[in-house]
Amino acid sequence: MSRDELQSLLDDVNADHAEARVVRVLSERGAVSANEIARATGLARSTISQALAELRGADVIVEAASADLARGVGRPAASFALNPRAGTCLGLHLSLDEIKLIAADVSHSVIFEKNVALGRDYAPAEAVEAARVALRESCREAGVAWSSVIGVGLSFSGPVAPDGRVQRASIIPTWAGVNLGEAFGPALERPIFADNESNCSAIAEMTWGAAIGVEDFVLFKIDIGVGGAIVANGRVLTGIAGAGGEFGHMTLDPQGELCRCGNRGCLELTASLNPAISVASRLAGRPLGVDEFIERAAAGDVGCRRLLADTAERAGRGLGMIGAILNPGLILIGGRAALAGEALLRPLIASYERHTLIKREETPPAQRVRIEIAKYPRNHALLGAVALVLRRHGRLS
Amino acid sequence: MSRDELQSLLDDVNADHAEARVVRVLSERGAVSANEIARATGLARSTISQALAELRGADVIVEAASADLARGVGRPAASFALNPRAGTCLGLHLSLDEIKLIAADVSHSVIFEKNVALGRDYAPAEAVEAARVALRESCREAGVAWSSVIGVGLSFSGPVAPDGRVQRASIIPTWAGVNLGEAFGPALERPIFADNESNCSAIAEMTWGAAIGVEDFVLFKIDIGVGGAIVANGRVLTGIAGAGGEFGHMTLDPQGELCRCGNRGCLELTASLNPAISVASRLAGRPLGVDEFIERAAAGDVGCRRLLADTAERAGRGLGMIGAILNPGLILIGGRAALAGEALLRPLIASYERHTLIKREETPPAQRVRIEIAKYPRNHALLGAVALVLRRHGRLS
Repeated sequence: MSRDELQSLLDDVNADHAEARVVRVLSERGAVSANEIARATGLARSTISQALAELRGADVIVEAASADLARGVGRPAASFALNPRAGTCLGLHLSLDEIKLIAADVSHSVIFEKNVALGRDYAPAEAVEAARVALRESCREAGVAWSSVIGVGLSFSGPVAPDGRVQRASIIPTWAGVNLGEAFGPALERPIFADNESNCSAIAEMTWGAAIGVEDFVLFKIDIGVGGAIVANGRVLTGIAGAGGEFGHMTLDPQGELCRCGNRGCLELTASLNPAISVASRLAGRPLGVDEFIERAAAGDVGCRRLLADTAERAGRGLGMIGAILNPGLILIGGRAALAGEALLRPLIASYERHTLIKREETPPAQRVRIEIAKYPRNHALLGAVALVLRRHGRLS
Repeated sequence: MSRDELQSLLDDVNADHAEARVVRVLSERGAVSANEIARATGLARSTISQALAELRGADVIVEAASADLARGVGRPAASFALNPRAGTCLGLHLSLDEIKLIAADVSHSVIFEKNVALGRDYAPAEAVEAARVALRESCREAGVAWSSVIGVGLSFSGPVAPDGRVQRASIIPTWAGVNLGEAFGPALERPIFADNESNCSAIAEMTWGAAIGVEDFVLFKIDIGVGGAIVANGRVLTGIAGAGGEFGHMTLDPQGELCRCGNRGCLELTASLNPAISVASRLAGRPLGVDEFIERAAAGDVGCRRLLADTAERAGRGLGMIGAILNPGLILIGGRAALAGEALLRPLIASYERHTLIKREETPPAQRVRIEIAKYPRNHALLGAVALVLRRHGRLS
């Protein structure tokens, strides 16, 4: 079994034969039972058995009764997974002042994670070179041959157009207009997949987190920005220009403050953590970081708790509108605000209820929205970067 | 070939074999070429040829080189369609003070249309009986045997839950809480399909209108209410409680006027045609109807034109938020306001541009949203009712 065989099965996304469909399901979901494969593909059990036998014969898949659930990322014991030796997926998250790296094999086990510090407003060329050096080095240390890498996923803090161009409203202004495929492709010499960090977070939750097997949900992120992602029929709604799920830039007040996106009165201006942290820092007499503010609120500091609740109230107003538009069955709350748990969730849900169309009390349980904390509110963008490759989402080259 | 054979092929929506998939494509799209079938199903051309031969042998399909494009509803000459004699689909639109009826055969040709007047706030039982009598009678007159009816689609002016229950925010208050399947099923004795009128409108545009072959778009309706529908990956996003696409009930101003839905400051209160018509009626010294107001605006009456432009400006603000959330590639404008054409579209697009995240001027043409008038802004809900059956959407019984 060669990487090329697996790659060709994965790459032919329109292939309709049973082997290709089974491989795609395993790549997306990790270790899965024959029952789950039947549900996901609609194929007959006999067809699936035959395909599994052929794929095992070719060493493309392995039985995975005790899948390697390294680092707590993975799924409970199940039956089949892609052969870990068949390929490696790399992920990069480009954040405000650092690059985060991750590698996972095609059976969904994490091989390594690493952070590389860069200055704020780092130049694209600098990031590309730093990523190339760090990925090559980490792969060498982990015994991963570069030729076994079936793709590199990029998670970016801003909307990414389908052709790989970074749109406005990125939180790293130096990247606006840069084409990610053209920037990283030549340096990494592997297929590049890219999407914005919230879409990556949603994909991470679908692959490893709180949305496994969920075909329709919304991810709503509250951090130093507000963002999110919409998943419909099992696919992330990227939008025609890659800007689907930009919840933070809903115009709540056309005469409001100017936003970094160039519009006025965006949801993000009032519903991100920034206004709360700014007041908390003034009261503390020194700048508080996000983590410290959240810890204080979660620990019961009455001032921080009220500031967080006010943030949740404003965010819930925007989320209520999203509810009127999408009427989702599941809303996962991500971003570091979610680390406060119930202290965020209670006022957020109350505000959602007040501002949305379909009210909980008059809806049968099966038709109610569930609003829950995501499984990886802090670092799912990085897990999502590697899941882009596993799910063949956002391929650029 | 019997109706039962076709019905069983249509009903088995998870059936994976080629015949079932070809039948589903023909039912959804009317007359289509073998090329289109290949694109829609991903099946190999040889598999499709074999399936078409078997289906022709069983009289389930016919060659449709000159499809019957009755009443201008249909598609240009193409190759295959379901055999018109294989079944009939009925549709009902329940509107403010009347029921509209339609019948089409499974090749998508309209057989009859009829309106039945009822008083305002008519009772559900009255509507069910009127529908039963009128449908039976019209079928008899048109020579359609009741046993050939493969389903009845219901288009309703309000959100419909997946179990068939009418939600709040219906424009016919007497229907809130009524289960449409339980109300109509026993009287009509055929499978019932139901959804709200805007979702039906979107399905009509996909089947006969401006969204044929479009997998992702938004329908935005401006009439005496504001509503809409979201189509993602070729399917209407109904939402967990059937309330997806309720654009009119986005809370723009939490301290605003009370809305009939029980919330405050909903988009519908300012962006429907009602406020404009109310002012125009006062100036005219008598009540103006929707059609008369639109005619005056389209004909260049400066007052009505400004009132319509102001409506469009407010609607565009909401639509801009929908753009930030969904970043759709196509937005179709429906409802009777759309009959004003450019007089509505110009100020609507200007307002959308001002309030949405991704701006036209900085986006390559392939990534720009197109905002256009729907093909059936006035009566697509009725066409959509029958298309519910053709597309097997919203089945209740």
